[in-house]
Amino acid sequence: MGDHAGRRHLRDLCQHRYQVVSALTFNSACVKSAIITIGDELLIGQIINTNQAYIAERLNSVGVDVERMLTVGDDMHAILQAFQESWSSYQVVIVTGGLGPTHDDITKKAVCEFFGTGLTSRQDLRECIQRLLSKRGTRWGPTAEEQTMFPEKAEVIPNPVGTAAGILFAENGKYFMVLPGVPYEMKEMVDQTIVPLLASKVTGSVIRHLTLRTTGATESMLATQIGEVNLFLGGARLAFLPSPTGVRLRITVQDTDAEAADRRIRAVEERIRSKVGQYVYGTGEDELAEVLGRILAERKLTIAVAESCTGGLIADKLTDISGSSRYLDRAM
Amino acid sequence: MGDHAGRRHLRDLCQHRYQVVSALTFNSACVKSAIITIGDELLIGQIINTNQAYIAERLNSVGVDVERMLTVGDDMHAILQAFQESWSSYQVVIVTGGLGPTHDDITKKAVCEFFGTGLTSRQDLRECIQRLLSKRGTRWGPTAEEQTMFPEKAEVIPNPVGTAAGILFAENGKYFMVLPGVPYEMKEMVDQTIVPLLASKVTGSVIRHLTLRTTGATESMLATQIGEVNLFLGGARLAFLPSPTGVRLRITVQDTDAEAADRRIRAVEERIRSKVGQYVYGTGEDELAEVLGRILAERKLTIAVAESCTGGLIADKLTDISGSSRYLDRAM
Repeated sequence: MGDHAGRRHLRDLCQHRYQVVSALTFNSACVKSAIITIGDELLIGQIINTNQAYIAERLNSVGVDVERMLTVGDDMHAILQAFQESWSSYQVVIVTGGLGPTHDDITKKAVCEFFGTGLTSRQDLRECIQRLLSKRGTRWGPTAEEQTMFPEKAEVIPNPVGTAAGILFAENGKYFMVLPGVPYEMKEMVDQTIVPLLASKVTGSVIRHLTLRTTGATESMLATQIGEVNLFLGGARLAFLPSPTGVRLRITVQDTDAEAADRRIRAVEERIRSKVGQYVYGTGEDELAEVLGRILAERKLTIAVAESCTGGLIADKLTDISGSSRYLDRAM
Repeated sequence: MGDHAGRRHLRDLCQHRYQVVSALTFNSACVKSAIITIGDELLIGQIINTNQAYIAERLNSVGVDVERMLTVGDDMHAILQAFQESWSSYQVVIVTGGLGPTHDDITKKAVCEFFGTGLTSRQDLRECIQRLLSKRGTRWGPTAEEQTMFPEKAEVIPNPVGTAAGILFAENGKYFMVLPGVPYEMKEMVDQTIVPLLASKVTGSVIRHLTLRTTGATESMLATQIGEVNLFLGGARLAFLPSPTGVRLRITVQDTDAEAADRRIRAVEERIRSKVGQYVYGTGEDELAEVLGRILAERKLTIAVAESCTGGLIADKLTDISGSSRYLDRAM
């Protein structure tokens, strides 16, 4: 079976299995979730935790709100406590880390203990892992054998790029999902399986964010000029995110349908722009140099930069934008 | 008062205050801590949480172990619950985020509620903030006034680069410290106040890490060749951190004195190198291209690269190293 066919097969298998739990649907204006990341490397600060943010952004995109992120080490007691706390309070719990084949990977054991189940060797996983290892030119060994062991009561979340299968428990209308901590494996599994699964289950919950990028005003100045926010937010949330180069204003709305959410976001945006519009240079991930470049190019203007004490930072920011030679005349 | 003198004054003030709590010292092989990061921007994945890793690394450097990291939103109930859980279980609790002057910053209020105290306007903070604002050319306003308000029962952790003072509670031999979430402010405060304070209080606890960088072997191969780790770890911990370019092996030891810790680390390192030394190309933050470059330069050898399907990645990695023109002959 070719690699592509192999992936499709796995996904079919997976979709088939999901029919078992298809009776579960969330229908609520607010599906709440927790993310648990496991690994000593996180607790000692060796690795910056990028998994949390990636998962949170993807969950938000399908209407699932993240209320809590928790990081614990490769320690059975700490892991079980984290599972207990989260599973008793949230409809969706996503766990990453500790699914590898080495002695410090104890998440699978913890999951079995927590859900009261044992491990069994699965033929479908054996085939997936064999395909992967032969592609890599690696021989079968005891650690590969270990990776075929899977919790009896759980369903597989396919891992198309690694040997550690994801683990899914669906119980009492709630989902508990465990993924490897290696970011590129985790991302594939979130995008290919978890996001489509949750998107099909979550109805009646939409989360929308809009970020206005400002510069030239401090957080305090903006807050003062915007005034009493509760007068116009109407259930939306507004956050101020200061940084050395400017303040981001983020509007968040949770609603039951997308149109209503967008309408409410726009209403808050208009209100804010009417108060502090002169400081807003863009939205979302817009960068100041990019917006400036766009305006210069549109108006067929050029710019020259004379800098002191900045190490040429302004020229550097400007030349970072592709096509900047059209408008950057000179810099010194 | 000049800026430098101002800083010194604040630090003196701070040190004076710390004499009040100087009776507290930890004398234990293991001081345990938790880090709480507060902010909706973290929960929606807009910001990658770099504060946690920074603080964890600095705490480790003074013998304080981080057992749990928790992230919650700008929500009173969630914040109080996080405080409660952590303060009841850890000797050191570090909190970041939500100290700004805008409506979404509620951490100060939560701290007051949690410790049963009120806010009072402090003259010393007023002077600090005035100095900072006048340096920035910003006028005094209601948000600056708000930043002079400080919990009555707490001590100040000086913020040399921002208007939000840090908050310190020392109670029953434990520390609860609250810092702003803006990374460059948080870092200054951790380095200037928290690290020296904890270093002076924590005795009899040393944490050492050593990371061996490997390439050319999978996690499974390394684990198999290293064999049963419990036979030689003797209380040290060994972690496997796989990535697409290789596996990091991290050894961690906690001990009561530095020499003993270093000796134990070296013993484990030797054992591992005797098993899988051929895959180890460096330690710590060593990069493969850097180590290769060093060897080539030492031996006065040159290298030529012919690449296909890689987009010139190998040549790119090699030329990233300064001085690589000495040994990189050509690349195609």
